[in-house]
Amino acid sequence: MRFEVITTDKYARAGVIETHRGIVNTPAFMPVGTIGTVKAMSPDELKEIGTEIILGNTYHLYLRPGHKIIETLGGLHKFMNWDRPILTDSGGFQVYSLSALRKIEDNGVYFRSHLDGSLHFLGPEKAMEIQSSLGSDIAMVLDDCTPYPSTYEYAMDSMLRTIKWAEHCRKLKTDKQAIFGIVQGSFYEILREKCLEALVNIGFDGYAVGGLSVGEPKEDMYRIINFTAPLLPENKPRYLMGIGDLFDVLIAVKAGFDMFDCVMPTRNARNGTLFTSQGRISIKREEFKADSNPLDPECECYTCRNYSRGYLRHLFLSREILSMRLNTIHNLYFYLKFFRNMRESILEKRFSEFFAKWINLVS
Amino acid sequence: MRFEVITTDKYARAGVIETHRGIVNTPAFMPVGTIGTVKAMSPDELKEIGTEIILGNTYHLYLRPGHKIIETLGGLHKFMNWDRPILTDSGGFQVYSLSALRKIEDNGVYFRSHLDGSLHFLGPEKAMEIQSSLGSDIAMVLDDCTPYPSTYEYAMDSMLRTIKWAEHCRKLKTDKQAIFGIVQGSFYEILREKCLEALVNIGFDGYAVGGLSVGEPKEDMYRIINFTAPLLPENKPRYLMGIGDLFDVLIAVKAGFDMFDCVMPTRNARNGTLFTSQGRISIKREEFKADSNPLDPECECYTCRNYSRGYLRHLFLSREILSMRLNTIHNLYFYLKFFRNMRESILEKRFSEFFAKWINLVS
Repeated sequence: MRFEVITTDKYARAGVIETHRGIVNTPAFMPVGTIGTVKAMSPDELKEIGTEIILGNTYHLYLRPGHKIIETLGGLHKFMNWDRPILTDSGGFQVYSLSALRKIEDNGVYFRSHLDGSLHFLGPEKAMEIQSSLGSDIAMVLDDCTPYPSTYEYAMDSMLRTIKWAEHCRKLKTDKQAIFGIVQGSFYEILREKCLEALVNIGFDGYAVGGLSVGEPKEDMYRIINFTAPLLPENKPRYLMGIGDLFDVLIAVKAGFDMFDCVMPTRNARNGTLFTSQGRISIKREEFKADSNPLDPECECYTCRNYSRGYLRHLFLSREILSMRLNTIHNLYFYLKFFRNMRESILEKRFSEFFAKWINLVS
Repeated sequence: MRFEVITTDKYARAGVIETHRGIVNTPAFMPVGTIGTVKAMSPDELKEIGTEIILGNTYHLYLRPGHKIIETLGGLHKFMNWDRPILTDSGGFQVYSLSALRKIEDNGVYFRSHLDGSLHFLGPEKAMEIQSSLGSDIAMVLDDCTPYPSTYEYAMDSMLRTIKWAEHCRKLKTDKQAIFGIVQGSFYEILREKCLEALVNIGFDGYAVGGLSVGEPKEDMYRIINFTAPLLPENKPRYLMGIGDLFDVLIAVKAGFDMFDCVMPTRNARNGTLFTSQGRISIKREEFKADSNPLDPECECYTCRNYSRGYLRHLFLSREILSMRLNTIHNLYFYLKFFRNMRESILEKRFSEFFAKWINLVS
């Protein structure tokens, strides 16, 4: 994997990641394909709207269908018929957020499946084994996501565990996959800095910031984003994990982050909340009943080119599968176009203008 | 609308219907697009698999979103982004099968919506008004679907009502739509014959047989199919309503029917039952867990070209939207290919061979 920053506009960066499965222009948004499919979308549709990379969830795929089955069937790319880059998370965050029981030990974490309550163990070795079976292009180290709020002492222990696991994962990296480290340290600047230094000493292909959006006030999240970004190595991709609210994305790109993932555009689509150039709308509203206009007159997506708000409202109220499809196409198209335009604004040194135009529309 | 029988092979017919929105080769299968979408499919996908005509449900579209809204939005074709022919049923069968209360009077039927219990009235005038608003290419007369079992007296009354309504509907036909009559008469040959004669005297663009598959033994259904088919006018399309089990289709094509509709391929797909050249399979079976083969090695559909049974099983068990999409594409492709091959066998005067090959595989 190669990475290059092409231009900066103050702290904002426009770059490009090269993998043997294709390039990823940054800032990049990665649609989430939790269990081997970006919900409601086909791979062809993902390509048509310009998706360059997707995210797969190690925790989910390990539990179902199981990474060994995916390996037998040729790896995650072949399994799901997606030949462009895939980044897999390490499962750390899902164990933290989804599993009923969670018992953290020095060499890993015991947890119960959210599907059937069965007991499992995830450590650095297992996390790397799973991601190797999946065959993702970018693997993430196993990290210990620190709960919010945590005392300084707890957060430090947790952060030290993340470093130890990162070191272990790094040793297991193969030539076939790039590997990113994950900065933890809760909302303590000093811990974030220590973690980051240790990870840089180990040496990774990219650096992620985790442990945000875990219940903290937004100001605390922005504080850590703004504190951490400039400390991250300049010549490696910077990935802000799980953040995808476009307001937050603008803040983070301004601070110097390059990669993002979030279920927001896909989940909102299925719930009928749609992003437009005029702000968000709820498609179920009565006023759209006989509205012959497209969702967003400024949008050129398949949905906006072919369907009226009246039809989309009807499909949504009727709980039709096509409703989830058309809404997801639109929201992901909106996101990817937003990212492309944002990148262009950085290349043309007018990111502050882009920021000013959108910061109110997406809040 | 023009119709021509190109070849017959004994009673089986290969023909073509010409409408100003495109041609329909017969025997034809019409995927069911109940409320303005063939469930899980996009119009592009329907075209890609060779769909020439779809069916829309007057009852459903009247209740939701309402035919006046669809008319405001440019008619059903524009509403759902489908520019090929559409046949709409008249609502008679849905009132019979779906609505809670049903009170039949001479000039129509009172019923309660299956959605919210609200009271509605459907008569010949209303049925034609709705179908005119929808702008379908082929409208169906309002018929009175006779319950099974019914006494001879009840069935005759019901059949006479169907004739009266058919006459009324025929008078309201516009130049923009073709209109088909519907033969009722329960399981009494003499009533079927009387009804048919009366309808032919009124004169329609095509003739349908309704009131079958309402709970009767299969032999009774086949008896009426075989009795009615040869009596129907030779120079008009013959439509067997709501029948789509391929075993039944083979029997009916052999008897001389040209058009079919059924939710079976789409509904089965969503339930994980898939049609293959080797018979039906349930995709959830354990044996497919790590199976790298396509669903049906003889199939060239998008699903079979790109996905393994192992992946399809995983998607189905995970209740993913893509599961319903890929399964529906496959089942509809299978159906449409089955119909194309069946038509070819008639054109080449080897339908009996086709019949013999498939009759056991589809039963």
